[in-house]
Amino acid sequence: MSLLLENQFPVLPNPYEIATKSFLESVSHLPPFFDCLGSKVFAPIKADINGNITKIRAVYDSDPVKYETLQKILETEKGMYGSEWPKAGATLALMWLKRGLRFIQILLQSLADGEQDENNPNHIRVNITKAYEQALKRYHGWIVQKIFKAALLAAPYRSDFLKALSKGQVVAEEDCLANIRQFLLNFTTTIDAIYEMYTVMNAELDYTV
Amino acid sequence: MSLLLENQFPVLPNPYEIATKSFLESVSHLPPFFDCLGSKVFAPIKADINGNITKIRAVYDSDPVKYETLQKILETEKGMYGSEWPKAGATLALMWLKRGLRFIQILLQSLADGEQDENNPNHIRVNITKAYEQALKRYHGWIVQKIFKAALLAAPYRSDFLKALSKGQVVAEEDCLANIRQFLLNFTTTIDAIYEMYTVMNAELDYTV
Ligand SMILES: CCCCCCCCCCCCC/C=C/[C@@H](O)[C@H](CO[C@@H]1O[C@H](CO)[C@H](O)[C@H](OS(=O)(=O)O)[C@H]1O)NC(=O)CCCCCCCCCCC
Ligand SMILES: CCCCCCCCCCCCC/C=C/[C@@H](O)[C@H](CO[C@@H]1O[C@H](CO)[C@H](O)[C@H](OS(=O)(=O)O)[C@H]1O)NC(=O)CCCCCCCCCCC
Repeated sequence: MSLLLENQFPVLPNPYEIATKSFLESVSHLPPFFDCLGSKVFAPIKADINGNITKIRAVYDSDPVKYETLQKILETEKGMYGSEWPKAGATLALMWLKRGLRFIQILLQSLADGEQDENNPNHIRVNITKAYEQALKRYHGWIVQKIFKAALLAAPYRSDFLKALSKGQVVAEEDCLANIRQFLLNFTTTIDAIYEMYTVMNAELDYTV
Repeated sequence: MSLLLENQFPVLPNPYEIATKSFLESVSHLPPFFDCLGSKVFAPIKADINGNITKIRAVYDSDPVKYETLQKILETEKGMYGSEWPKAGATLALMWLKRGLRFIQILLQSLADGEQDENNPNHIRVNITKAYEQALKRYHGWIVQKIFKAALLAAPYRSDFLKALSKGQVVAEEDCLANIRQFLLNFTTTIDAIYEMYTVMNAELDYTV
């Protein structure tokens, strides 16, 4: 589980101010997560998420003080973009990024909770489908949903996926799941806080792609 | 049809030496072709082709004399990469790029030839499917083939596609088709020559992704 544990998300302060710099640092280690799925089919997803991160980083780098927290990014851009906002800038990039993060979180949580297809205990399709339905499906039109269904067939076996998360080391399944649970603590809190911020700021959109 | 005619491929000399520099210049105008399909679903294809072009350009720029023609690229890399070749360097990038170019060529030729689904005369699915089957299908495993089938449903109407190729100008369909035929002359010769070169150099691979 080194992939995740080596780069845990930091504990959030109260009242959940997320420092842009450390958020970007933590989140930049996640795109390789999609390599753990083992197929080139997932490369476009990794690219999309990398694109979100690059967009947010560019905004942050343009003025690290002004954009010190994620909250400040949304507030500043709201003033800057007028009626175009929230479908603009780093606000839009983070809107989509948080959905990808939620997808990862629900998938890992479902594995940690031992949710399994009894007939195919070494498949993770039920876990991926659960994560997709809760995090992304409603933002995808029917064609992308169909593409998802086809791509799902390229999902790795549970054992291979857990091994890839452990960077190929042979780790007992229980140890790997314990590591996932450890990683999920701050990760989930962070994602929840970002979702909460989008709700409070009225920054969430529900158009489909 | 400005998109294509503004950037025609140059006539090839005999015996078909393709200058890398002008090839890269011509081919760099083609990725927007995938925008003409009208859906974000095709963005990963555009990205893949852009990646091929970037890879070839990087090799060319590293030594414009040594890599003056496409032929010289293959010959130099063959000596350089040993048993890894041809699955390496710009040789690999051009191997895939030529398949994308062949796809575009067959699709345009099929439209120019008036091939149509009689029951859906304003659909281009038959034309896209023909191009896919001849240029790419055999290099795709069953999951990517399934993704293709789903993505096909996002194909634009014939009239919208021709209009997009004309950069949104209202052009009579016959004029647009005449432009396509004009563009195809040198384009087809160039692609044929690249395929011929891969055969002669024994540089073609048939692994699937
Ligand atoms: C030869 C045949 C080839 C046919 C070609 C077919 C290609 C099919 C491609 C399918 C789509 C790939 C995934 C990308 C989808 C993206 O379209 C969406 C929206 O993407 C957002 O769009 C915004 C504008 O609306 C901005 O540009 C954002 O960019 S901005 O930074 O500029 O603001 C951008 O992220 N992102 C998403 O839906 C996010 C996806 C997250 C992760 C999903 C995990 C799913 C895992 C599935 C496992 C089974
Ligand atoms: C939320 C749900 C999301 C689920 C995510 C699903 C995403 C599905 C993605 C589908 C694949 C997208 C297309 C890309 C396919 C690529 O895998 C292949 C091989 O790509 C090559 O691979 C090589 C190594 O083997 C090198 O890396 C090459 O790179 S190198 O330059 O580094 O050497 C690279 O081009 N290219 C291809 O097959 C080429 C495709 C060409 C154009 C095809 C036109 C088809 C038009 C279809 C119209 C209907």
